[in-house]
Amino acid sequence: MSPNSGDYDAGAVARTLRQARLDAHLTQERLAQQSGLHPTYISLLERGRSVPSLRAIWLIARCVKLRPSTLLARIEQESDASRA
Amino acid sequence: MSPNSGDYDAGAVARTLRQARLDAHLTQERLAQQSGLHPTYISLLERGRSVPSLRAIWLIARCVKLRPSTLLARIEQESDASRA
Repeated sequence: MSPNSGDYDAGAVARTLRQARLDAHLTQERLAQQSGLHPTYISLLERGRSVPSLRAIWLIARCVKLRPSTLLARIEQESDASRA
Repeated sequence: MSPNSGDYDAGAVARTLRQARLDAHLTQERLAQQSGLHPTYISLLERGRSVPSLRAIWLIARCVKLRPSTLLARIEQESDASRA
């Protein structure tokens, strides 16, 4: 079931984080090394099984060379698109 | 000591969340009621003593009538300004 418009959408977060990593040509392992986050945590985030902390968003955004606000705008777009 | 440019800046997060709440004419108690977050958690966030989850950012953004990405852009601006 899709979340309502504006609700936190774990699937959209997961897909956006994964796509941003792939766009930056990083493996999960490499992203973990660069960000300092645990590889298991990154895997959980990309499967929508864990909610990222805002600090994790900052660390990941830096590694994929996006502003945190840009990463969130992509999550919003992904969430809107998946409900369309 | 200020964080380096682009680092997660707990002070900037705290100040931005507090200002967004005040701009929306909400007390911490009212924001807690509307968001479903615990009043103590909101107090900790506004003092930079706890790192918000991305889901908390979503819930707070809705209550203060901002997009989550807009809230993050304000945090980035606040962080840049405090280092200037």
